[in-house]
Amino acid sequence: MARTKPRLYRGFRDVFAADVLARNRMINTVRQVYERYGFVPLETPAIEYVEVLGKFLPESTQPDGGIFSLHNEDEEWIALRYDLTAPLSRVVSMYPELPRPFRRYQVGPVYRFEKPGPGRFREFYQFDFDSVGVPRADADAEICCVMADTLEAVGIQRGDYIIKVNDRKILNGILELTGYNNLDKIVEGDIPIGPAKGKPYRRQITSDDIFRAIDKLDKVGIEGVELLLTGGRLDESGDYTPGCELSDDALEKILGYLNAKKDSRKEVCDLLAETIGDSEIGKEGVEELRTIDSHLTALGYDESRVIFDPTVVRGLSYYTGPVFEGELTFEVTDESGNSKSFGSVFGGGRYDDLVKRFTGQMIPATGASIGVDRLLAALKHLGRIDTKSSTAHVLVTVMDKNFRTEYHKLAHSLRQQGINTEVYMAGGNIGKQLKYADKANIPIAIIAGDREFEDGKLQIKDLWLGRDLSEEVEDRETWRTERPAQFEINADELLENVKTILNQYKLL
Amino acid sequence: MARTKPRLYRGFRDVFAADVLARNRMINTVRQVYERYGFVPLETPAIEYVEVLGKFLPESTQPDGGIFSLHNEDEEWIALRYDLTAPLSRVVSMYPELPRPFRRYQVGPVYRFEKPGPGRFREFYQFDFDSVGVPRADADAEICCVMADTLEAVGIQRGDYIIKVNDRKILNGILELTGYNNLDKIVEGDIPIGPAKGKPYRRQITSDDIFRAIDKLDKVGIEGVELLLTGGRLDESGDYTPGCELSDDALEKILGYLNAKKDSRKEVCDLLAETIGDSEIGKEGVEELRTIDSHLTALGYDESRVIFDPTVVRGLSYYTGPVFEGELTFEVTDESGNSKSFGSVFGGGRYDDLVKRFTGQMIPATGASIGVDRLLAALKHLGRIDTKSSTAHVLVTVMDKNFRTEYHKLAHSLRQQGINTEVYMAGGNIGKQLKYADKANIPIAIIAGDREFEDGKLQIKDLWLGRDLSEEVEDRETWRTERPAQFEINADELLENVKTILNQYKLL
Repeated sequence: MARTKPRLYRGFRDVFAADVLARNRMINTVRQVYERYGFVPLETPAIEYVEVLGKFLPESTQPDGGIFSLHNEDEEWIALRYDLTAPLSRVVSMYPELPRPFRRYQVGPVYRFEKPGPGRFREFYQFDFDSVGVPRADADAEICCVMADTLEAVGIQRGDYIIKVNDRKILNGILELTGYNNLDKIVEGDIPIGPAKGKPYRRQITSDDIFRAIDKLDKVGIEGVELLLTGGRLDESGDYTPGCELSDDALEKILGYLNAKKDSRKEVCDLLAETIGDSEIGKEGVEELRTIDSHLTALGYDESRVIFDPTVVRGLSYYTGPVFEGELTFEVTDESGNSKSFGSVFGGGRYDDLVKRFTGQMIPATGASIGVDRLLAALKHLGRIDTKSSTAHVLVTVMDKNFRTEYHKLAHSLRQQGINTEVYMAGGNIGKQLKYADKANIPIAIIAGDREFEDGKLQIKDLWLGRDLSEEVEDRETWRTERPAQFEINADELLENVKTILNQYKLL
Repeated sequence: MARTKPRLYRGFRDVFAADVLARNRMINTVRQVYERYGFVPLETPAIEYVEVLGKFLPESTQPDGGIFSLHNEDEEWIALRYDLTAPLSRVVSMYPELPRPFRRYQVGPVYRFEKPGPGRFREFYQFDFDSVGVPRADADAEICCVMADTLEAVGIQRGDYIIKVNDRKILNGILELTGYNNLDKIVEGDIPIGPAKGKPYRRQITSDDIFRAIDKLDKVGIEGVELLLTGGRLDESGDYTPGCELSDDALEKILGYLNAKKDSRKEVCDLLAETIGDSEIGKEGVEELRTIDSHLTALGYDESRVIFDPTVVRGLSYYTGPVFEGELTFEVTDESGNSKSFGSVFGGGRYDDLVKRFTGQMIPATGASIGVDRLLAALKHLGRIDTKSSTAHVLVTVMDKNFRTEYHKLAHSLRQQGINTEVYMAGGNIGKQLKYADKANIPIAIIAGDREFEDGKLQIKDLWLGRDLSEEVEDRETWRTERPAQFEINADELLENVKTILNQYKLL
């Protein structure tokens, strides 16, 4: 028979016990927080019609770029969902009988047909919650509370995260002030610097590109943003990005706006109100932030948890009001050995055009989404997740095959008392079996042979203690003579002995 | 803007709050049972290489029939997994460092590109557990215990289910006795009966077709099996299936075997031992059943939970030893109004060729898989699942917009005490808000206006009691005068009042 090579498609991965257990625990904790606010679950299929998913994929230039799509039996294009928001918009449009507000959460894998990289997969989990049919900024304030509560519930301490809030209307107001709010022009010329110097470039620039430039602030610094907004920027890799060619006056207004950072939310609002001048849309945005501030303050969510930050843009062009970003602020070392803050794990905003492409209606909606795998990586980095890879707390070893049934009976009796117990069922001597328990991180082994069964005794081995004592048990002779962390009990005292050890390890 | 029609691809569906909540609860319960036996979770991607998935899809005649497949960037075929066993075999082959035994569970959606029908979806959940690297029948006995424990844990009472066990080796032994163990022939002729009478047929028949015929016993009865094994069978729809054309002697042996049904497992074994005669493989099969019986008996799993049934085949051709079927035995009415038993929700078996196509090695493995959605449908039918669609236990209504912040503070204080609470954030009068709570099945509403806030009072409405009293609250006037199931409390007694009501409904 020709052999098949067992291999994974790149960008995909297997997740093993410790990580699945940790992820499930984290997901359960997040779910509890979402449910505390009354959000209810929804599950939509992994496959949708391409036209239903729409063209919302961030950073994608082609209509169906970045998605896994295929032709179905009727020659229609179907695809794997790339996020959980597009399916939500379909659901809200399809079922007018749904309660309104419709407050749903959804967790599950999404798929992106993009270039994979380290920590960047083509299948990854998102965990969204959204409030649909809620027009006012108190709903946006609630999103901030849920974000903060969630991060603390999973184990990120206050001070290690910050929820940053801004409002798209203020950004739009600033563009209005600069006269670039409906920007749509072609910039062209010859690349002035770098390896490709002299080569011609041609690029369409719209108002979204101004947002995109601002959105890069964290990566390229304020000087970088300035270059992107004016003559263009050369990055470290030698790639040249043509600039937006804004006027000096416009640049000054935008940079002034980006500097409106203050410690208190109220001060930021005051400064923004000044900056925004008479722009109606801008004033609306500031009012929304003031409402959010007053709600957060009333509920005790002060600036140690939620701040206003004019530099927050959020890439997606569908946001229409407040935008939120949950950032982890503790430092980590990147691949190049540089220290940087862990970064964003949670993002969202208000998007009142949710169902417009389906029904033509405006339905106000606001929400946020967790990057589950990134948050899990953060918790791992902080040492805040259990890395235990076993579910069994007791391994019943098989020393004498004649007693196989007895071993199963022992295990059965422990299971009936709620103790997760496994009987070792492959071949191998006692040393191999204890190594198996050790590798699987099972804390207790039970050992018994003809002598023990005759005398109504059992041997209990505390493997974690044994490991602490740096013992190595190679074979039957060794354990018989050394018996590290091992003791004999009466068979009818098994349960209490097991419980005592598990209690020590906080496993009960 | 051209509008998009919001629609689902057929065979796919949205699952709403009550069903997701019920499914999650059921999955958690099953998980607990699997973990009680020490199985650990694994997650594999939804997408795999087609050649890695292999050709194991039941009932499929083409190599890639029945799967959703697409070309990737390197012109290779990739596809959505159709079960969780093929990915397990890849994992076991790819990672030789995995512990052995490798005992894993996996839950998740699988995808079949087949014709959808009522209750038959193209995306559905399976929940598998398998023990890899365990050569002996005590491991198979354990699978039976897990299956029984699982069904009881989710709420199927003893007597409402039965685990049926058989052994492929015995089936092979019977074929050996008949001389048809390596059957591979062409049958051809003219269809003798039915609408297509006289038309020529030509069909390849192998030993697997004998298994398939036996596997149809439940559907076509013993006479139907007899026809399929001999001259062919015409079904109700007028389709003609050419028969296996077995000899009279062979037919007699097989029918005799299928009749080896007895109340006790021991009697079945004795009868099978007689039937199987000198077939070595058949005798091995009977010995395996005897071992399973002795383990089950020692652990107290008697014939009220697990029986031996020679008619159980399990369609998949990869089983090599014991096969298991978890059947729900209570009666339901089908679409045509006929009464029939609910049927199989759990199936599995031993498949020692798991990784052979990858590594050439034989690795013994045994396990089973739940049809999650079918089991959930059964629990629903039995009225054993909570159909509650809300997660919020309290709705704070908004009667006076001036107090919006106060309503949020009330909700916040309840949440901090662990009470799931929602603030109504859409527009609408109090009647509309109470209808929302009613529709969402939220048990308690809190109502307060200027008068209450001035006096330090709150109105609590027990909506479930109100519903019982068949009250309809249309507007502020009505509730002010009638106040069904509604009472006033001091604001500082909110928590205890809420708890009292929730306790009555067993929601705390």
